[in-house]
Amino acid sequence: MNKVRIGIIGLGFIGCRHAVSLANNAIPGAELTAVYDRNQDKEQWVKENLGENVKLFTDEEQFFNSNMIDGVIIATPHPFHTEIAIQAFKHDLHVLVEKPAGVYTKEVRLMNEAAVASGKVFSMMFNQRLNPLFIKLRELISSGELGEITRTTWIITNWFRAQSYYDSAGWRATWAGEGGGVLINQDPHQLDLWQWVIGMMPKRVRAFCKFGKYHNIEVEDDVTAYVEYENGATGLFVTSTGEAPGTNRLEINGDLGKIVVEDGKITLWRLSVPASEFSKTFKGNSFDQPEIRKIDIPVEGDTDAHNWDGIITNWVDAIANGTELIASGEEGIKSLMLSNSMLLSTWTDNWVNLPIDEDLFHEHLQKQINNSKTQINV
Amino acid sequence: MNKVRIGIIGLGFIGCRHAVSLANNAIPGAELTAVYDRNQDKEQWVKENLGENVKLFTDEEQFFNSNMIDGVIIATPHPFHTEIAIQAFKHDLHVLVEKPAGVYTKEVRLMNEAAVASGKVFSMMFNQRLNPLFIKLRELISSGELGEITRTTWIITNWFRAQSYYDSAGWRATWAGEGGGVLINQDPHQLDLWQWVIGMMPKRVRAFCKFGKYHNIEVEDDVTAYVEYENGATGLFVTSTGEAPGTNRLEINGDLGKIVVEDGKITLWRLSVPASEFSKTFKGNSFDQPEIRKIDIPVEGDTDAHNWDGIITNWVDAIANGTELIASGEEGIKSLMLSNSMLLSTWTDNWVNLPIDEDLFHEHLQKQINNSKTQINV
Repeated sequence: MNKVRIGIIGLGFIGCRHAVSLANNAIPGAELTAVYDRNQDKEQWVKENLGENVKLFTDEEQFFNSNMIDGVIIATPHPFHTEIAIQAFKHDLHVLVEKPAGVYTKEVRLMNEAAVASGKVFSMMFNQRLNPLFIKLRELISSGELGEITRTTWIITNWFRAQSYYDSAGWRATWAGEGGGVLINQDPHQLDLWQWVIGMMPKRVRAFCKFGKYHNIEVEDDVTAYVEYENGATGLFVTSTGEAPGTNRLEINGDLGKIVVEDGKITLWRLSVPASEFSKTFKGNSFDQPEIRKIDIPVEGDTDAHNWDGIITNWVDAIANGTELIASGEEGIKSLMLSNSMLLSTWTDNWVNLPIDEDLFHEHLQKQINNSKTQINV
Repeated sequence: MNKVRIGIIGLGFIGCRHAVSLANNAIPGAELTAVYDRNQDKEQWVKENLGENVKLFTDEEQFFNSNMIDGVIIATPHPFHTEIAIQAFKHDLHVLVEKPAGVYTKEVRLMNEAAVASGKVFSMMFNQRLNPLFIKLRELISSGELGEITRTTWIITNWFRAQSYYDSAGWRATWAGEGGGVLINQDPHQLDLWQWVIGMMPKRVRAFCKFGKYHNIEVEDDVTAYVEYENGATGLFVTSTGEAPGTNRLEINGDLGKIVVEDGKITLWRLSVPASEFSKTFKGNSFDQPEIRKIDIPVEGDTDAHNWDGIITNWVDAIANGTELIASGEEGIKSLMLSNSMLLSTWTDNWVNLPIDEDLFHEHLQKQINNSKTQINV
């Protein structure tokens, strides 16, 4: 069987990584045939790192019409994802998009509609879904180890960035260039995992974003978001690029105990009977609670690794063999829905019901772009 | 010098404890002379536990007019605190009130006005202010070890209560009998410490209380509260009586690092330079942060103890020698202001600015009492 021929769009840090990986045959059943970048200065790098067989395009039309590719990995800045993905689907190409899927949910919906119309395979680079820590956590929860979920609390504030990071590129931390701050740039994986590990999206969100609290930037660098789920559970997502050393601690509570994920470890406190049952049947007015066992959950594999190749391999398998996707394009909308809802709740100073009003979000975002002091061309 | 003669009002669990302690001369410079309880059945207990010299009253007027006491410790259910305290001040008695100060802030203001008018010493039983853990924490913060405070996060969900606890007395977990649930019954110490250790009250609150979420009760048994401080810091207070095993973890972030208090231990992560300064001066677009040292802060003494006697001794010293109070009556309003604001924010589904509108709170509380299905006499 022929190998799936891959083209990569955007030779920034992550695009180059994927290109080198494919060029080194790290992805079974796939070969890198072409790369496309608007900048003219990549020729030398491509020759030295990808070999003679990979063709560099600097013109989008020629790239898409080259007949050299079956699928593309889109690794441009995220404001370009939608337009390029829709072009790719129009050219009957499979698509794998880097995170975040786009700037706002409407874009992701349009991408998915284009994917369906083309019949091609559309995947999202949610490589943290292959992190053994979160695979194990998801297994624990879906197997019922915690019972009904009652609360989720993710404090993910270990994203410290100095001002020079934001100053390093004009598009960084601007409404036009990124469409947001810590939520859209640093948190897409965590926002995805937050809903993926428990298999529930919130039904409404009340969030408090602080814009340029710690840095001279116009977007949010500090967020506290409170959410409510359909089953009555509540949740918190706290994130910041201003604190050092910050914290990365996920606590999930359920009727059968709690799980804490911190320092790359999973700890489970497991009740002998559900708290709800104990509450109903225990007699006496003391402060008794069900018997509790503290269990260190073993996790095999590297929990610090970024298994990008695993997602690329899965996407290639889906193209070649119809394997189920780990993170389909439709899944891209979820983490974006969460970050969009947090911004919208702040802008409207009110609750936001999910799914969000995508036009209202876009309207507000456009207002931010129009009012921005940093007018940039994207 | 004569000993300060103490009377105790309310011989429930905590009133009896204080009485026995005083009868055993655990408080230097003080002697227990009288106790007052409405119930007639305490005679035997008083004789056996407090000795022949302590007089039991079952009539309030006779107790207050006995000329046997210089000060009273009020250990009744909290809805009675205000009326009794005001009576005591009118009789020129010093007053020490159990936590919570009252049901709503207006009561505490009235108590304080009566105290000022009487010129007597008014103290609050915030005995956790003598917990070596929180003394050390407050010292660390007030000495500037964390720099400017940026965030406080207290998850205090280890208050699991079975339904039978709430069913054990008719007044429990009712609007008329307690004026609230977990906030007013379980959390007064933590709400007090939350502001005491950092020396800041929030300027506004947005809270989400769940009423009878885990139990067949009408008051709140689950709360998530978000707050903002004058200096731009944010905070979270999460509490519940429905989760087991629950969590008790206080994280405080500042410009110079963070402190986590958990499992009776204080851990400090200390930066070599303030994060704000590093952010401004670091050059380069990498993810560098200031050098961090993790320090286990030694705490001497029993962090599990309830040092009630320490507060009583301090109050007696204040009466006899003018010693400064550890927790003055005025301080009682702060933790109550916090819990009141969280309820009010939920009832109005909106922000609440501090200090709160005490009449508006009282109006809402009265509505809850009037609509209550459990009409009880208090």
